[in-house]
Amino acid sequence: MNILVTNDDGINAIGIRKLANELKRIGSVTVIAPDRERSATGHAITMHHPLRINKVDNYANGIEAWNINGTPSDCVKIGIESLMKAKPDLVVSGINNGPNLGTDVIYSGTVSAAIEGGIHNIPSIAISVAGKKGELNYESATYYSCKIVNLITKYNNEQNKVFNVNFPSISPDNIKGIRVTELGIRRYSNQYEERKDPMGKSYYWLSGKLLEIQNKNESDVTAIENNYISITPLHFDLTNYQFIKKMQNWELDI
Amino acid sequence: MNILVTNDDGINAIGIRKLANELKRIGSVTVIAPDRERSATGHAITMHHPLRINKVDNYANGIEAWNINGTPSDCVKIGIESLMKAKPDLVVSGINNGPNLGTDVIYSGTVSAAIEGGIHNIPSIAISVAGKKGELNYESATYYSCKIVNLITKYNNEQNKVFNVNFPSISPDNIKGIRVTELGIRRYSNQYEERKDPMGKSYYWLSGKLLEIQNKNESDVTAIENNYISITPLHFDLTNYQFIKKMQNWELDI
Repeated sequence: MNILVTNDDGINAIGIRKLANELKRIGSVTVIAPDRERSATGHAITMHHPLRINKVDNYANGIEAWNINGTPSDCVKIGIESLMKAKPDLVVSGINNGPNLGTDVIYSGTVSAAIEGGIHNIPSIAISVAGKKGELNYESATYYSCKIVNLITKYNNEQNKVFNVNFPSISPDNIKGIRVTELGIRRYSNQYEERKDPMGKSYYWLSGKLLEIQNKNESDVTAIENNYISITPLHFDLTNYQFIKKMQNWELDI
Repeated sequence: MNILVTNDDGINAIGIRKLANELKRIGSVTVIAPDRERSATGHAITMHHPLRINKVDNYANGIEAWNINGTPSDCVKIGIESLMKAKPDLVVSGINNGPNLGTDVIYSGTVSAAIEGGIHNIPSIAISVAGKKGELNYESATYYSCKIVNLITKYNNEQNKVFNVNFPSISPDNIKGIRVTELGIRRYSNQYEERKDPMGKSYYWLSGKLLEIQNKNESDVTAIENNYISITPLHFDLTNYQFIKKMQNWELDI
């Protein structure tokens, strides 16, 4: 199995190194990742400046690696279309240093990289550790990554293209199990913090405090709170087909 | 009606000026847009540098305007949360200089701005002219923008949050009508072009030729080809609920 590994924390992040080394057990791993942190890039792609691609020597034993001055989606796109000799059988994005849960996934570079794999018709998995930055425990995400990949590969039969997986930030012994979930709800308060620069001019930082929201039992947010690994199958067809039916009654004459 | 107008081509683009001036006929217009072109930014938001907000004096008669050194999603987010006195009743993003059709919408800053409005529970509309850059005819998009907004406002009753509207790049006389559509398929060949810099080192431009693909009659792509205005209702819940049912058979023991 040819596996393309990417992330949005940049090629030098701990998470991608752990993931790449672990996935060597089940496949041939190629790392193609941004040259720096590119989180919250959503599904951005680079059109207005050219991409530079650097081969990374000695990234890790038996792993070919490149870094790119682009977004996670750029990495997957150019990796599949130009860099890899054979089309990968699987794209894995992560291990992200922080959660990618609920409504937040729409902003996620990690998840967008997996969606880009899906657009290329390749089964793709985003993997994140749902804990606080700076005090993350990657053990479970690392330990179970091959198991999750094998599970999805075994049952999926390429039917669904993108899976979003979050791990609790705890040791493997404390993991309660795996839950199939739906994306929950995440909301923030006071999102922008205004500060003054030395010249007295305002600038604004996106910050925001996560609000406590009662999420459904079936949600990824609840699964993580209860020490379960969450697997959410994603799609990327934004058409609201249900609503199209309701629009049949609209008078559309011009 | 309070209308927040944004785009991804930047505040100085022709399209947003035409749109803002036209929408004054039906509401109070506030323009909050990127200070430069930010197309293909997908749903990126700015977390790693602070945002600067500049009030634009004399943008247009009766229109308050700000530019921001951020993405379209940033503009909508900070516009709603910090800049506008009252929460807008509607977000309109555009008029984009080029199509936002089919699978491409996932990369679109214009559409992402509308989705950000939807995330804030505000009905939102993305408007684009589906023609070649440099030879775009904004007449229909401008002339019909109020009609489309009124149509959606009248029938929608806030049920669906995001609509993606594309106009053919032709004069209003030649418009055949309005079609409710689904997102079609857009594919490209030879996406990356390799060039050498003066030092002999490679760099890569995203280019790619649009492939001719037979799209369904119901698609936005086909509607535009036949000189119809396309309206596609969008959602932004990426959970694949259908597939969750199939996953009930998966053995998830760890």
